[in-house]
Amino acid sequence: MGYLAFLERMGQVNDLLNAKSILNWDALTKMPPGGAETRAKQLATLSVMARDLLVADDTRSLLDKAEPEIAAKPADCVEAVICRQVREAIDYHLRIPAELVRKRAELGSIGHEIWAHARAASDFSAYMPHLTKTVALNREMAEYIGYEGHPYDALMFRFEPGETVATLKPLFAKLRDGMLPLLRAIAQKDAPRIDFLERHYPADQQLAFGLKMAEKLGYDLNRGRLDLTVHPFEVSFTRNDVRITTRIVEDWMPGSLFGTLHEAGHALYEQFSDPAYVRTPLATDLIGLYAVSGVSFGAHESQSRLFENQVGRSRQFWELNFGAARDAFPDQLADVDAEAFWRGVNRVKPGFIRVEADELTYDFHIMLRVDIEAALTDGSLAVKDLPEAWNAKIKEYLGLDVPDDRRGVLQDVHWSSGQIGTFCNYTIGNVMAGQLFEAANKDAGVASGMAQAEYAPLREWMTTHVHQHGRRFSRDELLVKASGRTLDPAPYITHLTSKYSEIYGV
Amino acid sequence: MGYLAFLERMGQVNDLLNAKSILNWDALTKMPPGGAETRAKQLATLSVMARDLLVADDTRSLLDKAEPEIAAKPADCVEAVICRQVREAIDYHLRIPAELVRKRAELGSIGHEIWAHARAASDFSAYMPHLTKTVALNREMAEYIGYEGHPYDALMFRFEPGETVATLKPLFAKLRDGMLPLLRAIAQKDAPRIDFLERHYPADQQLAFGLKMAEKLGYDLNRGRLDLTVHPFEVSFTRNDVRITTRIVEDWMPGSLFGTLHEAGHALYEQFSDPAYVRTPLATDLIGLYAVSGVSFGAHESQSRLFENQVGRSRQFWELNFGAARDAFPDQLADVDAEAFWRGVNRVKPGFIRVEADELTYDFHIMLRVDIEAALTDGSLAVKDLPEAWNAKIKEYLGLDVPDDRRGVLQDVHWSSGQIGTFCNYTIGNVMAGQLFEAANKDAGVASGMAQAEYAPLREWMTTHVHQHGRRFSRDELLVKASGRTLDPAPYITHLTSKYSEIYGV
Repeated sequence: MGYLAFLERMGQVNDLLNAKSILNWDALTKMPPGGAETRAKQLATLSVMARDLLVADDTRSLLDKAEPEIAAKPADCVEAVICRQVREAIDYHLRIPAELVRKRAELGSIGHEIWAHARAASDFSAYMPHLTKTVALNREMAEYIGYEGHPYDALMFRFEPGETVATLKPLFAKLRDGMLPLLRAIAQKDAPRIDFLERHYPADQQLAFGLKMAEKLGYDLNRGRLDLTVHPFEVSFTRNDVRITTRIVEDWMPGSLFGTLHEAGHALYEQFSDPAYVRTPLATDLIGLYAVSGVSFGAHESQSRLFENQVGRSRQFWELNFGAARDAFPDQLADVDAEAFWRGVNRVKPGFIRVEADELTYDFHIMLRVDIEAALTDGSLAVKDLPEAWNAKIKEYLGLDVPDDRRGVLQDVHWSSGQIGTFCNYTIGNVMAGQLFEAANKDAGVASGMAQAEYAPLREWMTTHVHQHGRRFSRDELLVKASGRTLDPAPYITHLTSKYSEIYGV
Repeated sequence: MGYLAFLERMGQVNDLLNAKSILNWDALTKMPPGGAETRAKQLATLSVMARDLLVADDTRSLLDKAEPEIAAKPADCVEAVICRQVREAIDYHLRIPAELVRKRAELGSIGHEIWAHARAASDFSAYMPHLTKTVALNREMAEYIGYEGHPYDALMFRFEPGETVATLKPLFAKLRDGMLPLLRAIAQKDAPRIDFLERHYPADQQLAFGLKMAEKLGYDLNRGRLDLTVHPFEVSFTRNDVRITTRIVEDWMPGSLFGTLHEAGHALYEQFSDPAYVRTPLATDLIGLYAVSGVSFGAHESQSRLFENQVGRSRQFWELNFGAARDAFPDQLADVDAEAFWRGVNRVKPGFIRVEADELTYDFHIMLRVDIEAALTDGSLAVKDLPEAWNAKIKEYLGLDVPDDRRGVLQDVHWSSGQIGTFCNYTIGNVMAGQLFEAANKDAGVASGMAQAEYAPLREWMTTHVHQHGRRFSRDELLVKASGRTLDPAPYITHLTSKYSEIYGV
């Protein structure tokens, strides 16, 4: 009974965090404008209550009583894993002074408006005071959290546990070595045509087609729904209610389509986690205080990137599904074939804005942010020198001169929330997607399924090797079990090289 | 500082209860079907957390510190009222054993399915065991809550504080004496035509017209929204976000129109409560554990009934607004004028179903339920004899023979939630609406406004006399200040007599 009582307490923590996610979803999709101010208070209260319930004396006493009850079981059994994770999370939160958490929430609550104004005016100096405080507070937080190598490791722990500056350095080097020559070579070649993607695609038809493709990949609408938002996202309120959003641009069809496949990939991770883990810590990020089954932000991104890019932007996918696209958009795609469509949606074009970047240039946007965040955290880069450092990296990687900070260092919302350390997961997700897709393709059923536009075997492989485990295994444990090794950029680089050499003849 | 810290704690209780309301709204409007099971757990956790936070030792200690700080202030100042209300609510909850609350929640969680099946099969015996337990549990609860006169008083306290069997008895007698002769006389007369109300009214046009009329009455969409649900309702998440829902029947136009005006009336109460009361106990029902500014269910119903019936079904309203209706539905209303429209939407037709009842017969459905609930609670009526008692009352009041329990005792969802004591508010609302509308009409600005289809003066009068006060005054204090007396059915009976004598010539 001791363990069960403890588990029910953890269920309440999960309930509170799911409630918070529902309030967030509502705020971004349905809430009337007037509701913003009091909604922020409600969200803050749910955060505080969840954290306080996790570290409460009687929660710890429930854990104390649960541990001896399962002491005789194997160390890797679910119960033991859960107890260890909860103890680790309690220790983590108790290390950080409540006052610091409050300060960060305060910084986050005022940051968005300051940032939005600074970005609109392209005025970095207006954002500097807030960012300076954010950096200082995060450095202080890193000391409380603790780290072995680099203070930035402590900040990444919340999003990508186990990842460090030391491990990212060689990974990024390999990626640059593999991808930069490709990018340089493509720059010399003619771009595929994309004019047909810029025709008028009515919003409701885009929504319907995107959702149809998402369902084809396995997204279950009995436990999901699609809405419109300014910034697309996926959010779950247990595996039984996993929602995605998209943004429609009527004269840029790939935006919503691939955005929807991306969010559907995230959604599959949640929808196909083990039902037995519902409301348990294996479906709760107790470090980040977020109700989620994915084991890390990077692992989550592996699923969105895999279904968006490895599957959704592949030649095979459009050879088999272009007919459906043409049925949905007969006029817009009248003069296009599967081959041209596939080439068009894979066009490479270096640009200033991360969220508009293509598959090949995206990681450069990420690598520069991670390097810069690490340098801000260890003090080797001063906030005032940030625009210069940013622009130099954009020049080095993409050959572009940043015209203003709005299209440079001020473009991302992330820092305004008071958070530093959130970026590496995007590139880790790409790398993992390469490994997992390569591994899945070795399964004859997966490969032959995809050759017939059947994606259930692929989804089932991912469920078996990734989704179902929730947060039971670490990201690296999961990756080793699924692909035989920890992070390895080779399959991803091979995927990019192979695709772009076909399209660009490089 | 002591009082402010206490008030912030109350703000957190309000936040939790608002979060619960948001989860409920989402469950009824947007949630995919698969989400129901885990949503129920999330709602249960928020309930438990709100109740536990209210009665927690450190909340009581915050209250203990707050009280001396305001002891020197007048006894009727806001701070003193708040402290008294919170102490009363804590005492109330501590009187009820947690085990009983848990049992009622359990009864409520299984009740809906049992009831829905029994109703579908019109099988009262299938519902009897659940209802028997519900009655027994509520009788037990009444003993813990305490009462002076009748155990049913203790159950009504949660919904209509201060109302008792002893006070309702003479009220109901007066209503029956005033309304039954009217009903008998109308039964001898020809009914106005309603054929034009049964034409095809497309759903989106009904929604648009209903919302337009709701805005005309003062509903603020910057702090609200309208959605579709099976059962219409109003719910608020502070005064800054007050939502309403409606149900559309395409060949019965008054359903959604007057439903929307009804919910908009509820919404005005919340939207125009004093901004200073946001997140305070004056915007929180700490007995019922529900985030609401209205002081009782009956007071709330006074606003919905007033805007739906006193205003929305008046001759004057349609003399002035029929043009807008015909603009919205030119074909459907081509052969109708304002007079015929007004008569049609006021047709009286006794029926079995409460939620379909017209203005005149509605209260008879309520009075029979209240009498029956009181008799079940004091044991003078056995559950097994309930259908017989029900059907006898329907015969007595409405002259109808109930054909089956589906259209009789099984029609209402209320008891399946484990609750008894919720019904009297509907009739109290009608009575209060009569008093408040009469009082408001003595204000020259209100009357001349309405004569020009301007409803802002009426809304402002209601805000001044009702809405703004939130839960600061008791329902009777409010009513005395606004209308000069406590509950008095005379204006309501006058309103009904006057309207129906015009329409039916009785």
